[in-house]
Amino acid sequence: MIIIGEKINGAIPAVAEAIARRDAAFIRDLAISQTEAGANYIDVCASTNVEVELETIEWLITEVQEAVDTPIAVDSPNAEICARAIAFCNKPGLVNSVSLEGDKIDTIFPIIADTPWHCAALLCDDSGIPKSGEQRLAVFAAIMDKAKQYGIDPSRLHIDPLVEMLCTSEDGIKVILEVIARIKELYPTIHVTGGASNISFNLPARKFVNQAFIVLAIGAGMDSAIISPLNKHMMGLIYAAEALMGQDEFCINYITGYREGLYGPVK
Amino acid sequence: MIIIGEKINGAIPAVAEAIARRDAAFIRDLAISQTEAGANYIDVCASTNVEVELETIEWLITEVQEAVDTPIAVDSPNAEICARAIAFCNKPGLVNSVSLEGDKIDTIFPIIADTPWHCAALLCDDSGIPKSGEQRLAVFAAIMDKAKQYGIDPSRLHIDPLVEMLCTSEDGIKVILEVIARIKELYPTIHVTGGASNISFNLPARKFVNQAFIVLAIGAGMDSAIISPLNKHMMGLIYAAEALMGQDEFCINYITGYREGLYGPVK
Repeated sequence: MIIIGEKINGAIPAVAEAIARRDAAFIRDLAISQTEAGANYIDVCASTNVEVELETIEWLITEVQEAVDTPIAVDSPNAEICARAIAFCNKPGLVNSVSLEGDKIDTIFPIIADTPWHCAALLCDDSGIPKSGEQRLAVFAAIMDKAKQYGIDPSRLHIDPLVEMLCTSEDGIKVILEVIARIKELYPTIHVTGGASNISFNLPARKFVNQAFIVLAIGAGMDSAIISPLNKHMMGLIYAAEALMGQDEFCINYITGYREGLYGPVK
Repeated sequence: MIIIGEKINGAIPAVAEAIARRDAAFIRDLAISQTEAGANYIDVCASTNVEVELETIEWLITEVQEAVDTPIAVDSPNAEICARAIAFCNKPGLVNSVSLEGDKIDTIFPIIADTPWHCAALLCDDSGIPKSGEQRLAVFAAIMDKAKQYGIDPSRLHIDPLVEMLCTSEDGIKVILEVIARIKELYPTIHVTGGASNISFNLPARKFVNQAFIVLAIGAGMDSAIISPLNKHMMGLIYAAEALMGQDEFCINYITGYREGLYGPVK
């Protein structure tokens, strides 16, 4: 599982405060703790006004890179900001994210075309999030056409099928699980990613919905997730689900992860 | 989800001690607490020497029925004991279990044929637990032939595909998930059940494996489980998984279960 650590995000009040007072130690600690907990990328999202977003993300990336060697996931709804933030990174990371909205893909794909950068791609376009599985797969096909055009190998893409909140759903996530399975069938080396919290919006005891969602998504083929690796229960379920799905022969990773304290009770 | 509450089992040391000293209050408390926690059946298993098994299970069933109205799951590896224990029950319950081993089916099916009793059936025969999915489905087909012969509707059967321990597995539970899906495809009204703990034998932090297994099995079609309803984390994941799989429109059951304290933080 590729873990994209989500904790450095200005949408989180404590992070917004740390950004406001330029509290480098707070940001560095989040980079270190997520790395120690198993993050493969440290997501960095300013969530500020657009006027100060670029300088904020530059400061955040600089502090993270002072603290850890973990690659950065540059995260902004603004593709232009993502494009410019790539230059602040001292090693290849992940762009979070493109979609078929506006000129996002044509802004990002040319820049990362001849690099080892990965890229998250959301299955939506200018008309929003498609309702049906077929429509999502049509958006996916269009994204893959663009990837081919720019020579970006599927193994560098993390497709986010965009899970909507469960509380307003009539048939749950069956369509999403089918879309995930189909994407992995079409491109076995591609990654499927997603966040774990939107699904549970407006529901009580959200952790159960988030955890069950990630396990079911792993069952369908998800192999990347934008989550907090500091959530040790979630991490334990991820290790367990991978072993259950036959991706961890004799549970070596499960047992090693436990011994290293990546999940479960502290040793 | 049909919850078969597993706590009254002489294989659990505290229960064995309660049986030895005929501690009725202890047994009754387990019946009450499991019922309040959402059990649809109270499993009753003596796990004693065969000489005293029948009198033990009679005592246990009597005490449970003094405490609650929840139907009993009569549980013994010995089909003759199950057959005789049915007579101790004051309402229809569930026989746990038959299989193609020996004459188990021909002992139990005739007795429950013209009753509303349910029955758990394990996918194994005299040669043990089949290795492949095809072999498991062949055992299943033979069990369904017997059910047809005795006029037992599929909706009264709880098929247990028998999950083996993950630590010695090379490909996880993919075969089991396929078997579950196929069984539900063949007989949409049948139940698929299973225990949640054998899978994690010999692994650390077993709860993660047990929880992820149940969630993945629900994703494949499992709708019955032999678990402890007192495990509130597991119950939360079960409610969440059912909602995610589109079996709980607008999450009404999920929200109600939370309000009633069946899972999640105590109110």
